[in-house]
Amino acid sequence: MPSAPHPQRAVPDHLGDVADALLGQRDRIRSELEALVRIPSISALPDHADDVAASAEATAALLADAGLEDVEVLEHDGMQPAVTGAWLHAGADAPTVLLYAHHDVQPVGTAARWTTEPFTPTERDGRLYGRGAADDKAGVMAHVAAVRAWLDTRGSLPVNVKVLIEGEEEVGSPNLTALLERWATRLHSDVIVLADLVNHDIGWPSLTYALRGMADVTVRVRTLAQPVHSGMWGGAVPDALTATARLLATLHDDTGEVAVPGFLADVRPLPEVERERFAALGTDPERLRADVRLLDGVRFIGDPARTVEERLWMRPTITPTGMDVTPVAQASNTLLSEVTAQLSCRLAPGQDPERALGALADHLVDHAPFGAEVEVTIGEATPAWWTDPTGPAWEAAVAAMTAAYGRRPAAVGCGGSIPFVGPFSDAFGGAACLLVGVEDPRSNAHGEDESVHLEDLYSACLANALLFAELAERRPA
Amino acid sequence: MPSAPHPQRAVPDHLGDVADALLGQRDRIRSELEALVRIPSISALPDHADDVAASAEATAALLADAGLEDVEVLEHDGMQPAVTGAWLHAGADAPTVLLYAHHDVQPVGTAARWTTEPFTPTERDGRLYGRGAADDKAGVMAHVAAVRAWLDTRGSLPVNVKVLIEGEEEVGSPNLTALLERWATRLHSDVIVLADLVNHDIGWPSLTYALRGMADVTVRVRTLAQPVHSGMWGGAVPDALTATARLLATLHDDTGEVAVPGFLADVRPLPEVERERFAALGTDPERLRADVRLLDGVRFIGDPARTVEERLWMRPTITPTGMDVTPVAQASNTLLSEVTAQLSCRLAPGQDPERALGALADHLVDHAPFGAEVEVTIGEATPAWWTDPTGPAWEAAVAAMTAAYGRRPAAVGCGGSIPFVGPFSDAFGGAACLLVGVEDPRSNAHGEDESVHLEDLYSACLANALLFAELAERRPA
Repeated sequence: MPSAPHPQRAVPDHLGDVADALLGQRDRIRSELEALVRIPSISALPDHADDVAASAEATAALLADAGLEDVEVLEHDGMQPAVTGAWLHAGADAPTVLLYAHHDVQPVGTAARWTTEPFTPTERDGRLYGRGAADDKAGVMAHVAAVRAWLDTRGSLPVNVKVLIEGEEEVGSPNLTALLERWATRLHSDVIVLADLVNHDIGWPSLTYALRGMADVTVRVRTLAQPVHSGMWGGAVPDALTATARLLATLHDDTGEVAVPGFLADVRPLPEVERERFAALGTDPERLRADVRLLDGVRFIGDPARTVEERLWMRPTITPTGMDVTPVAQASNTLLSEVTAQLSCRLAPGQDPERALGALADHLVDHAPFGAEVEVTIGEATPAWWTDPTGPAWEAAVAAMTAAYGRRPAAVGCGGSIPFVGPFSDAFGGAACLLVGVEDPRSNAHGEDESVHLEDLYSACLANALLFAELAERRPA
Repeated sequence: MPSAPHPQRAVPDHLGDVADALLGQRDRIRSELEALVRIPSISALPDHADDVAASAEATAALLADAGLEDVEVLEHDGMQPAVTGAWLHAGADAPTVLLYAHHDVQPVGTAARWTTEPFTPTERDGRLYGRGAADDKAGVMAHVAAVRAWLDTRGSLPVNVKVLIEGEEEVGSPNLTALLERWATRLHSDVIVLADLVNHDIGWPSLTYALRGMADVTVRVRTLAQPVHSGMWGGAVPDALTATARLLATLHDDTGEVAVPGFLADVRPLPEVERERFAALGTDPERLRADVRLLDGVRFIGDPARTVEERLWMRPTITPTGMDVTPVAQASNTLLSEVTAQLSCRLAPGQDPERALGALADHLVDHAPFGAEVEVTIGEATPAWWTDPTGPAWEAAVAAMTAAYGRRPAAVGCGGSIPFVGPFSDAFGGAACLLVGVEDPRSNAHGEDESVHLEDLYSACLANALLFAELAERRPA
């Protein structure tokens, strides 16, 4: 096994036994992860329902084996199985911590692009490859290993622990509301530790304090009652596709920054301290180009006065992601009468979805080219979630991660959306949320050749174990 | 039969016998047209190949019955059958006139939108309804009836006549070059009379002196090597659909007028006399709106300083008519990496297709948003055709139409393209082209409920008959 760079861990002396127990189980953690990866628990494909069920059972067995109690596969009409468990003997004064991850995985994508079989976990250069190896079966293992290290060593945990391992995160968690309604009391906690985020780099952990929200908007543009001949009418009669292109072109300025004032009105201005913190991350634009595979000569978009991090995490987007229009092969000499475009919006901290999307709808109608009929339909929206990166839970996580990785975690945002976080935190009376993870920028979650960096996985397990002690000490409530 | 407004015809006395013979055959012309309409000669649908063949045979029988000689169905590898015939006994000094129409028709479109069956000709309010009743079986009848009236009455024609009735005009005349190469000598003429255009109004004939050309251009826009997650990357990474929309938006100004200077550079400036002539047509914008079924509040596009006629006939267009892009139902939270758009261009008099399309391609590449990769493919182009609306053939047509309709024809352009005209005129050493027709603005050729105004059909037949005498008198060569 090629050796990965070993982190300069700095575990406090009084937790040495727990850390040693955990790091002594590296091989076990890895082989348990491999066993999970072998189950193709693809929640998006109905054919794999049995695999999702098998994955839930395997996860439940791991939780029970770690010493958790009341382990149960949660069944609910139409929901893919979630797994829960708890250990609640730390006393009423100790904080209660909900550990979240998910055991379902994405489809494999293009099978031919995998170097090795997606469901045959394989190690190369210190990384374990396989679908779900990072997202999020590594997250499951981070919780399991942390709990087990304490119970194996001390027979107890310094905090009360509840676990929720979801089975349909990769299809957008459609039953979160039902989960909350049915099991809110059972899951109620003071702190939520969600292990499904991406670390800043290999060996450099992140604590995520902001998630963008999301909404879909549909725009139908009509100019004519029916398509007409482009020869007879072209030059005097507006077609719906030109009108749609011109309308979409009003949504951004030349840099690609959103240019809809009403939509931007409530975006939280980024405090200078956060801007400086992002700049200090020292992101290498050339590495970003390579990561995302921008074509040669293609520029990043957005206001150049903002860091790339601010653009990705703290600014909203409006992106056309689909269009109902005649395909090229079927195009004839016809002026199109109707085009529908799908807009995918990412919502930034500060935006009220209703106000922001209403302003976007008004903009679209107000900017209808040639007087075209513009009809806007606003879909369901998830607002952004963000928190102040301070307070006892936050400080506990910083301390635990710094000790486990030998490096202070980066305080970052995430451009994506996790619908779970806001509603659960709210339902628990504003529970602190610690968003951590095992992925790194090379993990290619959702893509082919997904992988986890094994030494980072062990660091993540250790960080979670140390976190229990740090939370017990600081007692966030 | 409801009576249509009877034209104030003014036939010269010395042609009274020919005119009487022709107008005495109204019922026969109509029933022969009905017989043609009953044959569903849809050239676009391979299933209808037998019908196109039957239609060619029926057309050949009409030509022979009218007294034309050497009638033949022209067969050529892959070509749908054309029909030819001739009468060449007017003497070497008399001009030779090629009479062109086509016997194939468009598909029926939406069958449910037809008031009566498309291939069951039916009269309502002085109009005969049926697919091909106007386009272009009425054109076939206009030639047949004109020739027959002369041969029935006088036993001779004042000009030499050749006839070409094409069988694949509605699929873009793909074998015109082959037709010309193989039968150029047999078809060689001094004047071409093409009966496939639209008259300005019911009872108000047109002579068309300009046709726009046509070209397809394909634009592929790429920003990324592959699609990426809109949450992870949205706001910093440009997507191909936004880039495509912004690129298409550079092609026109806010009025919808083409805004590509190099593309417009060679467009023939419209002489003041033509502009005045167009203005004198007295087009009613409200009627145009209704004809094309513009939605309420939608504006006409183009430079308001130009008449609608100039915009439709004498200005070029660039219109996106199709796009390869994810449909709305399949859109996911993904930044698209590649979009392809089809642009349909109408070329105006003066434009050299190669120069104009080259300038368009340069513009597209030069205006690539965000440095996107833009690849332009230029398809085959037909240049515009136009002629000076003067000279002996033109004057002959004006005289014949004025006499037959009782109204001087409008000198008009046509926004569409007829690939036949330019190459045949050129191949015959610059033969004069007279572009006439039987359709009127309510004919809805290519649409549902296609129809011909019957009294206009008889006027068109009469105009063609009188034209032979007018051409013989003026002897264009």
